[in-house]
Amino acid sequence: MISLHDRVRAVVWREDALELLDQRRLPDTVVYRRLTVAAEVAGAIRGMVVRGAPAIGIAAAYGVVLAARARYAEHPDRWRERITADLAELAAARPTAVNLVWALRRMERVIAQTAGDPAERLLAEARMIHEEDIAANRRMGELGAALLGERGAVLTHCNAGALATGGYGTALGVIRRGYEAGLVERVYADETRPWLQGARLTAWELVRDGIPVTLLADGAAAALMSQSAVRWVIVGADRIAANGDVANKIGTYGLAVAARHHGVQFMIVAPASTVDMSIASGAEIPIEQRAAEELLTLGGQPVAAAGTEVWNPSFDVTPAALVDALVTERGVVLAPDAAKMARLMAE
Amino acid sequence: MISLHDRVRAVVWREDALELLDQRRLPDTVVYRRLTVAAEVAGAIRGMVVRGAPAIGIAAAYGVVLAARARYAEHPDRWRERITADLAELAAARPTAVNLVWALRRMERVIAQTAGDPAERLLAEARMIHEEDIAANRRMGELGAALLGERGAVLTHCNAGALATGGYGTALGVIRRGYEAGLVERVYADETRPWLQGARLTAWELVRDGIPVTLLADGAAAALMSQSAVRWVIVGADRIAANGDVANKIGTYGLAVAARHHGVQFMIVAPASTVDMSIASGAEIPIEQRAAEELLTLGGQPVAAAGTEVWNPSFDVTPAALVDALVTERGVVLAPDAAKMARLMAE
Repeated sequence: MISLHDRVRAVVWREDALELLDQRRLPDTVVYRRLTVAAEVAGAIRGMVVRGAPAIGIAAAYGVVLAARARYAEHPDRWRERITADLAELAAARPTAVNLVWALRRMERVIAQTAGDPAERLLAEARMIHEEDIAANRRMGELGAALLGERGAVLTHCNAGALATGGYGTALGVIRRGYEAGLVERVYADETRPWLQGARLTAWELVRDGIPVTLLADGAAAALMSQSAVRWVIVGADRIAANGDVANKIGTYGLAVAARHHGVQFMIVAPASTVDMSIASGAEIPIEQRAAEELLTLGGQPVAAAGTEVWNPSFDVTPAALVDALVTERGVVLAPDAAKMARLMAE
Repeated sequence: MISLHDRVRAVVWREDALELLDQRRLPDTVVYRRLTVAAEVAGAIRGMVVRGAPAIGIAAAYGVVLAARARYAEHPDRWRERITADLAELAAARPTAVNLVWALRRMERVIAQTAGDPAERLLAEARMIHEEDIAANRRMGELGAALLGERGAVLTHCNAGALATGGYGTALGVIRRGYEAGLVERVYADETRPWLQGARLTAWELVRDGIPVTLLADGAAAALMSQSAVRWVIVGADRIAANGDVANKIGTYGLAVAARHHGVQFMIVAPASTVDMSIASGAEIPIEQRAAEELLTLGGQPVAAAGTEVWNPSFDVTPAALVDALVTERGVVLAPDAAKMARLMAE
């Protein structure tokens, strides 16, 4: 078994501050940014210093600790009302991943129950959110790997690894466990435009773990599937609706369509905190549109003529009908639908 | 009608030399490279100074003129045997586009029939190949636009425009004519990794023509189709097999799969010189693999960890069964198959 402690941590609480591995600078530079103010945490989420639905939730939880410390120091009697602005800023940092809101609600419940200096209780809650996420990833790794069947290659998109979570990873957790078990022989990683999370983050994580990884352009994935090279597509999720529809990084939906066309199986791996039972279907998931510059420039240089318009959604929605397996720490749902999702979340 | 002469030319014969618009430097810099030696032409094709199947064929034809001039000057009696090395180098410059070999065969026929100084006859043949290509594009523009039906948006991939041809364009020829006719309201252009021909070339051509163009990441195309925003996918081809299977820029096949899934129509536009009746199906088309660095670096900087492997095919194969319309200057083939292709090419 590869030691968990060898793995990278995207989010670390150290000496009374939040340290975030600056994912914009990977793979060439491994540097942590030290944040002591909640507004910096919101900025880091907006600016993608930290990304990945579970990691965003964990970072926001620690952000609440920073906010509470400052608000309590300012005004020990009125910190609870003053912190609402911090909570709102953190919640608004990115719209699609529901784990952010989920983590903030957990922190709010503790805020409501706390008398006196809240720092210690809030830090304990944030740490619990963090540790529970790692444990959930380990459990999902076991459950997902058990579905893989025969040894073969898998394809993943974006980064749903240790960097996107508290540690270990959702989709990459299944892949790590599957590799240990001899069921995954190679990982094909979409580069994942425009941010190149596949090239910059997923390949880096897998190379560190000694798992064979082959990078490809997003547009090459269907051709790869036509050559029978891939048995499973395994990806994470940013929000899952009550009917099992899944929002994930732009490009996921096209992979699901291609997978179905080729008889390749399609697995979503995400903690239960990603499920939003308050919305009926994927049509209601807010999809973040990001800046045109992400496509109009490359390394700061323009690559498209002035006058070119841009459509740059950060996520797309894969209907439940294209999902063969949805893996959460609560269990596996095959061919998800509203009834199965309700049972999963009621347990 | 937009004047044809306003349009850009990727390949120009001027003052006894071949001038190629350096497409690696677009859109920021419009600069022509002046070539006087055949080996430079082969190098420019390999290095993608000029790209696009028809444009490669035309450039190679002019390259033969340069080769013949040099070989005849060297040895007026033995130039025919000495030029074979030049022809072989040009033919080997890129493997997938069959127009290259087709244009060289036409030049070889003239070489076989020429006594005395060959320069003038070969230049006349190269110019004829060039002019025929432009005329074919205009004809395909008419034929393809006539298929469009109701006004709507279209999606294209890579660049099959004036830059990829003698002028006007194959897929972009249909789009230009369709826009003039009021049938195309907007063009969605895939950026087309790894070379970004969609961002750098297609958007540039369309902005110059005043046609509304929206750039998107390749992975976003399926999500766009799911929103009913696109009526046709219109692309070029690098080689078409006798059964109607089509090799085109990597990513085309995934678009064809997604188009079929969404009931979006899929059109291939290519001159008859792109059809290779000598091969039965797409499985026999040689697919060029390009350098790993195209995915491992961005603007010269590494973006993936050392140890990452790469799969970087430049083309993929779309089976004829996913093609709704194949447009050539000889006519339109709906739902192509071997019998229909044989009829088209026999006429």
